[in-house]
Amino acid sequence: MAAERDIDDLPRNAANYTALTPLWFLERAALAHPARASVVHGAVRYTWADTYRRCRRLASALARRSVGHGSTVAVIAPNIPAIYEAHFGVPMAGAVVNCVNIRLNAPTVAFLLEHSSAEVVMVDQEFFSLAEDSLRIIADQKKGSFKKPIVIVIGDHTCDPSALQDALRTGAIEYEKFLETGDPEFAWKPPQDEWKSIALGYTSGTTSSPKGVVLHHRGAYLMSLSGALVWKMNDGAVYLWTLPMFHCNGWCYTWTLAAICGTSICLRQFKFRNINCSTIIFSSLSRLQMAILFYENLHGRIIDHLSFPLSASDGGSLKQMLLDAFVTAKAIFSAIANQGVTHFCGAPVVLNTLINAPPADTILPLPRVVDVMTAGAAPPPSVLAAMSKLGFRVSHTYGLSETYGPSTVCAWKPEWDILPDDERARLQARQGIRYVGLEGLDVFDPKSMAPVPADGSTLGEIVMRGNAVMKGYLKNPKANAEAFENGWFHSGDLGVRHPDGYIEVKDRAKDIIISGGENISSLEVEKAVYLHPAVLEASVVARADEQWGESPCAFVTLKDGVDGSDEAAMAANVIKFCRERLPGYWVPKSVVFGPLPKTATGKIKKHELRAKAKELGPVRKSRM
Amino acid sequence: MAAERDIDDLPRNAANYTALTPLWFLERAALAHPARASVVHGAVRYTWADTYRRCRRLASALARRSVGHGSTVAVIAPNIPAIYEAHFGVPMAGAVVNCVNIRLNAPTVAFLLEHSSAEVVMVDQEFFSLAEDSLRIIADQKKGSFKKPIVIVIGDHTCDPSALQDALRTGAIEYEKFLETGDPEFAWKPPQDEWKSIALGYTSGTTSSPKGVVLHHRGAYLMSLSGALVWKMNDGAVYLWTLPMFHCNGWCYTWTLAAICGTSICLRQFKFRNINCSTIIFSSLSRLQMAILFYENLHGRIIDHLSFPLSASDGGSLKQMLLDAFVTAKAIFSAIANQGVTHFCGAPVVLNTLINAPPADTILPLPRVVDVMTAGAAPPPSVLAAMSKLGFRVSHTYGLSETYGPSTVCAWKPEWDILPDDERARLQARQGIRYVGLEGLDVFDPKSMAPVPADGSTLGEIVMRGNAVMKGYLKNPKANAEAFENGWFHSGDLGVRHPDGYIEVKDRAKDIIISGGENISSLEVEKAVYLHPAVLEASVVARADEQWGESPCAFVTLKDGVDGSDEAAMAANVIKFCRERLPGYWVPKSVVFGPLPKTATGKIKKHELRAKAKELGPVRKSRM
Repeated sequence: MAAERDIDDLPRNAANYTALTPLWFLERAALAHPARASVVHGAVRYTWADTYRRCRRLASALARRSVGHGSTVAVIAPNIPAIYEAHFGVPMAGAVVNCVNIRLNAPTVAFLLEHSSAEVVMVDQEFFSLAEDSLRIIADQKKGSFKKPIVIVIGDHTCDPSALQDALRTGAIEYEKFLETGDPEFAWKPPQDEWKSIALGYTSGTTSSPKGVVLHHRGAYLMSLSGALVWKMNDGAVYLWTLPMFHCNGWCYTWTLAAICGTSICLRQFKFRNINCSTIIFSSLSRLQMAILFYENLHGRIIDHLSFPLSASDGGSLKQMLLDAFVTAKAIFSAIANQGVTHFCGAPVVLNTLINAPPADTILPLPRVVDVMTAGAAPPPSVLAAMSKLGFRVSHTYGLSETYGPSTVCAWKPEWDILPDDERARLQARQGIRYVGLEGLDVFDPKSMAPVPADGSTLGEIVMRGNAVMKGYLKNPKANAEAFENGWFHSGDLGVRHPDGYIEVKDRAKDIIISGGENISSLEVEKAVYLHPAVLEASVVARADEQWGESPCAFVTLKDGVDGSDEAAMAANVIKFCRERLPGYWVPKSVVFGPLPKTATGKIKKHELRAKAKELGPVRKSRM
Repeated sequence: MAAERDIDDLPRNAANYTALTPLWFLERAALAHPARASVVHGAVRYTWADTYRRCRRLASALARRSVGHGSTVAVIAPNIPAIYEAHFGVPMAGAVVNCVNIRLNAPTVAFLLEHSSAEVVMVDQEFFSLAEDSLRIIADQKKGSFKKPIVIVIGDHTCDPSALQDALRTGAIEYEKFLETGDPEFAWKPPQDEWKSIALGYTSGTTSSPKGVVLHHRGAYLMSLSGALVWKMNDGAVYLWTLPMFHCNGWCYTWTLAAICGTSICLRQFKFRNINCSTIIFSSLSRLQMAILFYENLHGRIIDHLSFPLSASDGGSLKQMLLDAFVTAKAIFSAIANQGVTHFCGAPVVLNTLINAPPADTILPLPRVVDVMTAGAAPPPSVLAAMSKLGFRVSHTYGLSETYGPSTVCAWKPEWDILPDDERARLQARQGIRYVGLEGLDVFDPKSMAPVPADGSTLGEIVMRGNAVMKGYLKNPKANAEAFENGWFHSGDLGVRHPDGYIEVKDRAKDIIISGGENISSLEVEKAVYLHPAVLEASVVARADEQWGESPCAFVTLKDGVDGSDEAAMAANVIKFCRERLPGYWVPKSVVFGPLPKTATGKIKKHELRAKAKELGPVRKSRM
C-alpha cells in the first residue's frame, strides 16, 4: 500500500516548486527581448531591458525605505509608464499595488488611502493636488496620529512642466529621482506563497463605501496567461491602452504584456475636472490625446465635467476641440498604422465612431486584423457587422474587478459565419462562456441555489468560482461572507443560460423590478426607452405601485433640440412607444425628465434615482 | 499591525480556489466548441462533445472497477484517439496515466508494468502480443502472487480486423465495449490537491533501469498553457501528431489542444517489428499512413525492423513501399492542405525531406504559415533557410521528460531577420531561453554550482527549477536526491550560456547518443555487445553519422582465442547479434576492434574513444 502511494507522495522541493507570480514574466521578457519596446508614451520609449531595470530600481528604492511585506503603495495616475512599472516594482518589493481611479474626488481617495493604510503614494503630476487634498483630509481626521505617506510625483513630458515644479516645491520626491536611489540589479524574490496579495483595487460600486478587492500573485499569473490565450494575444502583440490600468490592473493585461513580450502604447487619459482648461494648449494635443478626449466624450464625461465650470468662450473652444476629437477615430487608426497596434479595448460607442469615421480619417484597409475587446453593454448588430467588415475582430467579454477582469468571452463559432447579420449579432451580444482561467461559471436560482434551466429565459444570478476569483474584500468580513456564500462568488448580476451553454447578462440583481410577482429587467426596459428618437439617456428603476407592488419608472434626458415642454404629452408618447415593444407589465408607468446623476466614472447613480422614485410616492391604482 | 496583515490573511475558500488541472480544459472545450473536431484518425472524427463524453465514460468505467486514486493505468498505443482520451479519462477517475513507449521489448515493458503497479493495461490491437508477453513475464516472476491487470484492447479501423478478434478471444475487453460500461455524464472531480500525480512516463535513461518520471496536475496545467503561448498555438489550431503521445504526454500538447479547443490529427505510427508484413495490404495504406512510414523510415526503424525478418519478395514490396513512403512528404503537405494543419513537430531529418520533396508532391505555396517545432539536434543552416522559404516557421526547442517536454525555446528576434542565412541559422541553432512555464534555467559549473559566465564558451551543466519540473522519479529516492541536488534539477546535459542569455547544448550527458532525434543509451548498447560470446570488453560512443546525426560506434576487445582476423565479418556478426536484442536504431553502425584505453583505476577512457570516433569521420549515408 505504501508503495502504491509513492506516486502521490513525492514532495515539493526548491527545484520543482515555486510560487506562481507574474513577476517572472518581466525577468523573462528582459532576457528574451531586451531591445523590444515595452512601454511607449509619446516621445518616451522604453525597452524590456529598461523596464526590468526601472522596476528593479523601484523595488529596491521602496525596500530601502522599508516598504515591503504588508505595505500598500497607492498609484494615482493615468496610463503612463510609471503605473505600468508599479505593477512589477511594487510587488517585487513584496508590497501590494493599489491603483486608484483618477476620477474619484478627494474625500473618496482619502477614504481609500486610509482604508488601505497606504505607505507610499505615487501620483501623476496632474493629480498631485488630488493626492494632497486627500492626505489633508486624512490628516484633519487623524490629527496627531497621522503619519504622512511618502509622496512620489511622476512627471510627464506631455504635460505642463510648471505643474511638476509646483508639486516638487511641496517636498514631494520626483519619480525619476526616486528610481535613482534604487539598485537596477536588485535581487527581487518571488513571494514565498503565491496566495500573497499583489494588488488592491476599489470598486466604485453603487454602495456607500467602496470595497477593496484584493488579488493574489497566483490569480494574476493565471489570468495573465488566460487573457493572452483567450484573446489570441501572441508574442510581440502591440496593445493600445484605451482601458485605464487602474481599472482592475488593466484586466491583468499589464502582466500579460510581459508574458508575451508585447508592447504597451500608452494613452494618457485627461481628467478635465481637476484642471484649468485654459492651460490646455489645444494645438499641442497629439492625435492620441485627441483620441482620449473623443473616448471620454463618448462616455459623457467631458461634458459632465466641463460644461459646468467653463465660460461661454471656453465652451466654444471645447466644442471645437470635441469636434476635433470626434474625428480622431483617425488617431486610433493612426496608432494602428504607425505604432503597429494589434489589440485594444473599446466600449461599443468607440466601435461605433470608428465605423462612422470619414473615409479620409481611416487607414483602410487595415494593415492587419486588429483585435478589439469590448465589455459591458452588448454591441448592436449593425456595429458588429460593420466592424467585421473593416477588418476588426471583436471579442465580447464580461467580468468584474472581483474576477481579475473578464470572466467570460463570447467565443466565436465558425458555424455562425454564414448566419444573417442580425442573428450573428444576437449570438455575439451574449456574454458567453467562462475564460480558461476561471473554472466555474453558472447561473443560479437565487433561492434554491440550483442552476437555472438552460432555456435562455429563466433569470438567475451569475456565479463564479475558481482561481480567477479575488482573494476577498479588504477588512470587510461581512461583504466577504455574502460574496462567497455557498462556495460561489456572487456577481450580483442577473442572467440566463442559453441552450448552447452561453450565458447572457440581463441585469444587476438590485436593478430588478418585481411587478405583480414577476421579474422585470430594468435593462430591457431601458433598451426600449433608448430606442425612442427623442431620448438621449434613460435609466429605469422600481417605483412603489399600489396595485403591482412595484412598477418601472423611467428617468429620461431628452436630446438637444427636442421640445419637451409638454412633459405629460412626452411621457405618454414614451409609454406608448414602449408598449409597442415590451410586454405590457414591463412598460414604464411613470416617466420623469431631467439630467441623470452620475458617478465619477460616468455610471448612472441608480440609488439616487431610486430615492427620487421613493419621493414620488407609489403609483396610484390605475382607473382602467 | 493585525490590520495591516489583513491584506495577506484572506483565506482560501471553495469560491476562490481550486486545484489546477488540465481536466478543466476538456469540460470547457466541450462547452465552447461541442461540434468542432477534437480528434481525427482516418475515417474516425470525434467532436469535443464526443471526446468529453467518451472521456467521462472511460473515467466512469474505470471508477466502477475501483480504479482511482493511487491506481496506475498503462497505455500501450501509437497516436490513436484512445491514447488521447486516456490523458483525460484516466485522471478524471483519479488515477495516473502511464503511456508506454511502443518500441520497447517485452522484458522492459514487464519491468514498467510491475514497477508502476499497473492495474489496467489499455493496449492497441497491434501491440496486444507485446502486452501479453510482458504480463506473462511478470506472472512467471511473481508466480502465485500475480494479479493480472484488467486488459483492454483498442481496435483500430485502419488495422487488420482479425488481429483484434484474436486478442478478444483471450478474454481481453474491447475498448469501445469498456466505454459502454461507463456513464457519459460521469461527475468527475478535480484533484483535491493540484500536486496529485496525473502522469507517469519512463525514460530510457542512461542507467540500467528505466526511471519513472511522475508529473502532477499543476505542472500539466501550466505547461499546457505555456506551450500554447510560446508556440502561438491559438484557439482552433490543428495539430498533426507526428510526435508520439507516449513521449512525455506529447509534450503536454495533448492537454494544450483541449485548452485551445484545437484539433488533433492522428498519425498512427506503425511498429513493424511485431507484425507480420504479409498482412499489410499496401494499396489500402492511406496517405497519412504513408507519412508515418516515411517518418519511421527516416528514423531508421522500418529498415532496421524489417530487413532482417523479410524474405526477398517481401523485401521487394517493402522497397516499393518505402519508395512510396519517401514521396509522402506529399502526405504531410496533403494533411496541411486537406486537414488544415497549422502545427506539427518534426526532427531535423523530417524538415530536410520536406525541403527536398519533388515539386509535384508539394502544395506550395503553403495555404498558411505552418508552425514546426523541432527539438534535439540543431537543424543545419541550409534546412532552416529552406524551411523558412517554403513558409514554415521553425521553433527550436529543448527539453526533457523531467521538464514536461520543452524547457527552452530559441525565441526569434526580429533583428535577426536581416542577417545572412548562416548567421541566422547559427543563432537559431541554439536552445534559447526558458519557457514561460519554467521559472529557472541556468548553466552551472558542476563543481562550484555557480553560474558559468555568459561567454558562449564555458561549459557547465544545464539546470532547471520551477513548476515545469517533474514531481520526481517513482520509487527512486537515490535518483531524486541526485536529480534535485542543491535545489535545482540537473539535466545531465552540458551547455554554454551566450552573452545574450541564450543557452546552447554542447554535449549530452556523455553516455547518450542522439540518432535521428532519438536518445540511445550507450550503456544499454554496451550491455548487448557484452553478451556476444566473442566479446571481452566493449565501450560504445557516438560517432557522427551523415544520415542520423549520430550513430553508435562500438569499440570491442575480443576474448583470447577468438579469431578476429576477418574484422569485417566479425563486425557484421556483432551487429547481427545486437540486432536480435536491441531496437534497430540502437544497433552499432560501426565496430572497431582493439584494446580499450583505461585509466589507472581501470575505467575506460571514453573521451579517448570519442576522439577516435571523430578521426573515423562520419558514417556514410546508407545506399538504399
